[in-house]
Amino acid sequence: MSAFTAVDVIRTKRDGGVLSDAQIDWVVDAYTKGLVADEQMSALAMAILLRGMSAPEIARWTAAMIASGERLDLSPVARPTVDKHSTGGVGDKITLPLTPLVAACGGAVPQLSGRGLGHTGGTLDKLESIPGWRAALSNDEFIAQLRDVGAVICAAGEGLAPADRKLYALRDVTGTVEAIPLIASSIMSKKIAEGTGALVLDVKVGSGAFMKSVDDARELARTMVELGGAHGVRTVALLTDMSTPLGLTVGNAVEVTESVEVLAGGGPADVVALTLALAREMLDAAGLPDADPAAALRDGRAMDSWRTMVRAQGGDPDAPMPTANEVEVVRAEADGFVESVDAYAIGVAAWRLGAGRARKEDPVSAAAGVVLHKRPGDPVRVGDPLYELRADQATRIPAARAEAERAVRIAPAPSTASSLVIERIG
Amino acid sequence: MSAFTAVDVIRTKRDGGVLSDAQIDWVVDAYTKGLVADEQMSALAMAILLRGMSAPEIARWTAAMIASGERLDLSPVARPTVDKHSTGGVGDKITLPLTPLVAACGGAVPQLSGRGLGHTGGTLDKLESIPGWRAALSNDEFIAQLRDVGAVICAAGEGLAPADRKLYALRDVTGTVEAIPLIASSIMSKKIAEGTGALVLDVKVGSGAFMKSVDDARELARTMVELGGAHGVRTVALLTDMSTPLGLTVGNAVEVTESVEVLAGGGPADVVALTLALAREMLDAAGLPDADPAAALRDGRAMDSWRTMVRAQGGDPDAPMPTANEVEVVRAEADGFVESVDAYAIGVAAWRLGAGRARKEDPVSAAAGVVLHKRPGDPVRVGDPLYELRADQATRIPAARAEAERAVRIAPAPSTASSLVIERIG
Repeated sequence: MSAFTAVDVIRTKRDGGVLSDAQIDWVVDAYTKGLVADEQMSALAMAILLRGMSAPEIARWTAAMIASGERLDLSPVARPTVDKHSTGGVGDKITLPLTPLVAACGGAVPQLSGRGLGHTGGTLDKLESIPGWRAALSNDEFIAQLRDVGAVICAAGEGLAPADRKLYALRDVTGTVEAIPLIASSIMSKKIAEGTGALVLDVKVGSGAFMKSVDDARELARTMVELGGAHGVRTVALLTDMSTPLGLTVGNAVEVTESVEVLAGGGPADVVALTLALAREMLDAAGLPDADPAAALRDGRAMDSWRTMVRAQGGDPDAPMPTANEVEVVRAEADGFVESVDAYAIGVAAWRLGAGRARKEDPVSAAAGVVLHKRPGDPVRVGDPLYELRADQATRIPAARAEAERAVRIAPAPSTASSLVIERIG
Repeated sequence: MSAFTAVDVIRTKRDGGVLSDAQIDWVVDAYTKGLVADEQMSALAMAILLRGMSAPEIARWTAAMIASGERLDLSPVARPTVDKHSTGGVGDKITLPLTPLVAACGGAVPQLSGRGLGHTGGTLDKLESIPGWRAALSNDEFIAQLRDVGAVICAAGEGLAPADRKLYALRDVTGTVEAIPLIASSIMSKKIAEGTGALVLDVKVGSGAFMKSVDDARELARTMVELGGAHGVRTVALLTDMSTPLGLTVGNAVEVTESVEVLAGGGPADVVALTLALAREMLDAAGLPDADPAAALRDGRAMDSWRTMVRAQGGDPDAPMPTANEVEVVRAEADGFVESVDAYAIGVAAWRLGAGRARKEDPVSAAAGVVLHKRPGDPVRVGDPLYELRADQATRIPAARAEAERAVRIAPAPSTASSLVIERIG
């Protein structure tokens, strides 16, 4: 007989109580080992979602998730380590130019990433559209590449926070993803376990993000900044706008191509601005305040770092990217100005085109996605191309088009643009 | 692809919304068929517990649970059918004398009962202490005995409300038992499916009951009375006190013996009073207002009905009942009056002695239990026996005694007795 039963722990939270350290340690460990059943953990997750958790409860829960697996030792990496995590958005390819950029400026970026589920894309899915590139590295390969190249983007190993891996999959099918304590502990347990010395969080707010309100995003950001600090990881968060897709591309190969444009010194202004804002935060957090990331984009150092990073994982940075069999260009039916491009609807359109997956097991299309020709604030005339829809099969286009048509609004007069970075917490 | 996904249904309730009829029909049916997973249903059950359900949602949920299986047709039984359900208490053996008593007065009582779990006993466990008696009857045997004897107490068949059977087992291990909408729909779906024409509910309130407050008990009672009416079952509820055990015995064989005393015209006053109060409600609901249950206890008709009922299911009403190997008598250490005997603590003591089970699969001891020698209000002198603890193994006694000692309070002056029937709803 254990000291606790799952039902006692569930009832404590259900009735609005505070879980003890011992209860949290026990339930996370017992769940990881299969002694607490999925149906018990999902009831507890729902109770946590509806009842909340205190800061000490969240801290202990996170510590228990870290303790469920190994914690990497990045001390063989001579350079200061600093990672970035985005809570997920539409067209959010920032990790791709940012990781080699920060490495080019003297940091080492141990970026353990995930795959997309639902309407937001996954960094690994995007990189896998590069011929030859592989996401799976052993811990030794991960640390060696971090030491030698300073930049690595790969899948998290099985040994990191296995409690989180199991719990995340459960939350996904039980309507318990949107619990701030569980989101914060999920993100931070993986980032702390990977061994990074500093962390910059990009907490997205808006229709295309998990957090729809600034208040929720701020609460999540503060919770994570505190958790990082409590575990010795210098952590800063930016709250950034996700009501509009980032850049002009939403998909896999198309986002890689746009990222390479940024690394070549071009690319859409919002992608460049957010990449530089996050790079400055990361370099400051890494103790490299004198680095000049804008210069590293201009002078080709960031591009060199990208090419080295891609090659180190088997990818060919010069190979042609996959192209779509079917492309439909949608044109403006009125003169005016683009008032808004809704991130969520564009995310769903890209997903319907095949860029995302409905179930974990589904494959994604490398070539599918949405390419915008206009952004909010741009003037348009009847017949101008607004966006194009790309897919491997023509049958995917009509449903995606219906979503995209809802996303783009044209108004007779221009509207004022909203700012990309809403708030800094740290 | 189904019209709904489980996550959509969970999210609707999680966010405080009202489930549509179609959502309820789908989720109950899909769960019964295994298309909705246990971990999804437990998250939904927790959301229902914390967010509540409207009256129309509860009605639809109950209808969906009934529709998951068969509904018995009791029309071959010529007499009016009327059943009773207790929400469970300590020493609550009322079904045993009540069922044959109502049958002796002209009603037909189709009592489908359960086994005990936790600190409250189960009617089937009690009857199984009678040598030869069997709980399992086919539907045909059930209906034939109801027609021929007018009284049957047996286990519910697999075909009645299978959704409830599955959901109840899930709620038991996920901390979601205490949701009034789910308790009400669980009880009423089984009772409506069994085909009874009328129903009297004994909703217990107090330390030994699931409902600790009169407000909660009243809400549960009203919900069930409405559900019964909506399905054409005349339903009445009594709210009755469960702060003190019913009668002087808590266990299996000991409760059968006490029930037989009541059927012989004796027995503790509270058991006799509640049996008669419920019998009058049942006879009224069955359209037999002129029946005289007190006379049927006095003149032996109820006892005859009991003996016929027990024999019809293989039991020997004249066989000696099992006796305990170990009996410990606990005596008063002060003069005074019994102030209170806490039902919950006595229930736990009986459970520790072996009368109840911790898991569904566990066996129960027929002979184990608590026999009270004093009731609240009784005067006591130092050395008087207060109660005895009975068990098959002596090792079970110390932990039970610790519980029982907490249960019984002696005061220097007598206190006023609380009334047994608190309120009538119907």
